[in-house]
Amino acid sequence: MSTSFSSCNARTGEVLGTLTASTPADIDAVCTAAAAAFALWQAGSGAQRASLLRALAAGLEAGRETLVAMADQETALGPVRLNGELDRTAFQLRRFADIAERGVPFEYTDDPAVAGAPPAGHPAMQRWLLPLGPVAMYAASNFPFAFSVLGGDTAAALVAGCSVVIKAHPGHPQLSQQTYALIRQVLAAQNLPAGLVGMVQGASNEVGVQLVRHPAIAAAAFTGSTRGGAALAAEAAARPRPIPFYGELGSINPVIALPAELKTKGADLATTLAGSIALGCGQFCTNPGVIVLLDATQADAKAVNDAFVQQLGLALTGQNPHAMLTQGMRRNFDAGVAHWGEAGAAFVVHELAAAGRPPRPVLAQVSADAFIAKAALREEVFGPGSLVVRAASVAQALQVLQAAGGSLTVTVWGAQAESADVQALVRGAMAIAGRVLFAGVPTGVAVTAAQQHGGPWPSSTRPESTSVGDAALARFLRPVSLQDAPAWLLARQGRPL
Amino acid sequence: MSTSFSSCNARTGEVLGTLTASTPADIDAVCTAAAAAFALWQAGSGAQRASLLRALAAGLEAGRETLVAMADQETALGPVRLNGELDRTAFQLRRFADIAERGVPFEYTDDPAVAGAPPAGHPAMQRWLLPLGPVAMYAASNFPFAFSVLGGDTAAALVAGCSVVIKAHPGHPQLSQQTYALIRQVLAAQNLPAGLVGMVQGASNEVGVQLVRHPAIAAAAFTGSTRGGAALAAEAAARPRPIPFYGELGSINPVIALPAELKTKGADLATTLAGSIALGCGQFCTNPGVIVLLDATQADAKAVNDAFVQQLGLALTGQNPHAMLTQGMRRNFDAGVAHWGEAGAAFVVHELAAAGRPPRPVLAQVSADAFIAKAALREEVFGPGSLVVRAASVAQALQVLQAAGGSLTVTVWGAQAESADVQALVRGAMAIAGRVLFAGVPTGVAVTAAQQHGGPWPSSTRPESTSVGDAALARFLRPVSLQDAPAWLLARQGRPL
Repeated sequence: MSTSFSSCNARTGEVLGTLTASTPADIDAVCTAAAAAFALWQAGSGAQRASLLRALAAGLEAGRETLVAMADQETALGPVRLNGELDRTAFQLRRFADIAERGVPFEYTDDPAVAGAPPAGHPAMQRWLLPLGPVAMYAASNFPFAFSVLGGDTAAALVAGCSVVIKAHPGHPQLSQQTYALIRQVLAAQNLPAGLVGMVQGASNEVGVQLVRHPAIAAAAFTGSTRGGAALAAEAAARPRPIPFYGELGSINPVIALPAELKTKGADLATTLAGSIALGCGQFCTNPGVIVLLDATQADAKAVNDAFVQQLGLALTGQNPHAMLTQGMRRNFDAGVAHWGEAGAAFVVHELAAAGRPPRPVLAQVSADAFIAKAALREEVFGPGSLVVRAASVAQALQVLQAAGGSLTVTVWGAQAESADVQALVRGAMAIAGRVLFAGVPTGVAVTAAQQHGGPWPSSTRPESTSVGDAALARFLRPVSLQDAPAWLLARQGRPL
Repeated sequence: MSTSFSSCNARTGEVLGTLTASTPADIDAVCTAAAAAFALWQAGSGAQRASLLRALAAGLEAGRETLVAMADQETALGPVRLNGELDRTAFQLRRFADIAERGVPFEYTDDPAVAGAPPAGHPAMQRWLLPLGPVAMYAASNFPFAFSVLGGDTAAALVAGCSVVIKAHPGHPQLSQQTYALIRQVLAAQNLPAGLVGMVQGASNEVGVQLVRHPAIAAAAFTGSTRGGAALAAEAAARPRPIPFYGELGSINPVIALPAELKTKGADLATTLAGSIALGCGQFCTNPGVIVLLDATQADAKAVNDAFVQQLGLALTGQNPHAMLTQGMRRNFDAGVAHWGEAGAAFVVHELAAAGRPPRPVLAQVSADAFIAKAALREEVFGPGSLVVRAASVAQALQVLQAAGGSLTVTVWGAQAESADVQALVRGAMAIAGRVLFAGVPTGVAVTAAQQHGGPWPSSTRPESTSVGDAALARFLRPVSLQDAPAWLLARQGRPL
């Protein structure tokens, strides 16, 4: 197990500093402290939880200048995006603070006794929600604020009444340490135990594996690759006492564009879509990786679609993505694009960029038959590239969706008017997606009540849960029924002991 | 793979008939039909779902005489219990029909657009609940009605909008076929596709494994042993596209009895507890398998506890359990009791009964130290036996609970008045249980709104879900967000396409 790793400038590769990976003893100490802190925290009030989250949001904003500069150096995401992401992260913390103050984690079902014999008669019951325990939170590389140290998983777990052990992402270790220092300050200022939020770090897989194996850990939340998430999910399931693993993994986010829509709005949609494909250098889990076009649903469909592909290619050529998060991600993007070529995709846009430079956008095209037949064409290629899939019929487009498998999003353009074809496509989209969009592009995930960020495998390990939005809280609670509970316990009204 | 298996008289072992196990081709055909039926059923109304469930409940009641007689022959559970269980099963079907009529499966979150830039601004969103798809339902041996062919899992899955493939339990194959024939009649009478509810059968593990591996199956619900459930859960997770596996597995259901309570009510509680231990020959997942007594919390605690153990032993000796469900379960019970002895437990009651006869109740006693040290003492022994664990202090009792691991229930007698000790015990109980009782015994699970039947591992694979009560429905639904959805779709108000 390597014990040191580096912080690097994402644009130049320059080493900014060297860090020491957490040892097994470190991990054990952090998890043990999280278990001790959990015992206190879980019984706390909504006001206490809200106060912590509001102070963390204020701390983020107060530290903005330093944090954004550090994040920009380690991720190359640029100050505009990073300031917006910091805003979103603070918004999210305050939204969960509101949720805590409204008492959502303490909502319970009251079920008074019904006289008489079973099955109709029953004793007095209340169904409460209990926090699971210390949560292992695996930070993502591509959202150094919103899905990292102080991101949505941390906020949701704390509001649920859980303590948290963060596995910092090695892609932005200095930022992680700076953010964690802020957490420590806030915990101290609020007289909360330092163990309530712990952090471990390292560039090897061992640190993450040791964390999910630790007996004190009661649940895990992960945002990252399908391969990494599947490996950790298997570890969580193989524990002597398995724990829930909430993984938000890879997704190819199909966009289905109907010819009638493209015929009237193709130029605008091409511009919008190109922006979404290249946004953040394509490093979003909601990046539109597959564009499904239907070539035989109207007489001029093929010509309309051909024109749209040309427009999209032109619009993409005009995009200038910034550097990728790491050199390794750049190499993976190049390799993924090469796999498309090897699997028979025809390139529409494929300008080469030197290694070490930001990648250029890529657009390729395949038949639906090829897409359905070849797994290599259905794998997520993380970066500013997209694959156009040409389907003949609605039936074939549905097969394409089925072959694509679970996805965080599916976008359907041209579904404003109801028809049997449109119904079938929307049904097919809903069957594989966590979110179905009928306008706009899938990048940009609203932090709101009705958000669902998580779809069937491989886009997430638990499609019944979401990692963004108000319902993200539910991942860290489980119900407990109290039967014939004494008055002193019922007086707590759902607040854990 | 064996292709035939037997229906046996549970009391005599006599072979009542020979059945043919489902072949891989049978299983494929049933799953394929379930997928086709799902496409129609998922878009149906609550009224349609309720109508099916009400007809099934009426059919059960109309067939009562034949069904109960058949069940009694194959299970030895006796007509009183079996009539009561049939009542409960019909009640459950009608309760889920009510839930369908109230529109619960179609409840959605409406989240209108908020003008302005993100993070506060967002598009119009609605969060719907979608049925998962065909559900594989693994019937249990010990509830031939309530957790079998027409049990709670089938009812909940149908109300959610899922089709169902039942894996019949080989312990009551004739009853399963008779119940399934009733389902087919009702489906035909309501002009519903026969594939909406399919059934497969067999005595080998292969049938169940093939079912959970079938690509059309979208979720599985299981009630049975920890070993069997863990094996199927691993299969569900190892699929190319993993699916949720809702397993209700083994549970030892600790009962913590405080000396002050036993001092005043010991005699009555011993009688009640003995009845619970021997009820249904101990073949309940909520059977109280461990009784935790505290020997040093008051001056006379040890004497009070000794007296209670004597009373409990006497009361158990007076119980005459009926035959077990199968000869194999009888052998497993004897083996489990022998393991207690090998692990150093002292027997309080241990009358031998000849092989082939109903077992006699067993009561054994161990120290908390031994219980914590030896895994053999913490394993579920399915049958009319219970292990008394003598703890010195509250702290040691909490260690006993921790060592016991997840359990469907924990019962705490003597928690009416709040104190630090009582708080600690209740906190410890809630930490490992799905349901905490403060009076009575854990056998008997109310089918009601606040029920939670499912606790941390090993008592269930998904402690955030329940297999009994209104919330059991949620297992078979997953959220989908609709962003900027067209008017024609929103007009469906949460009803799937």
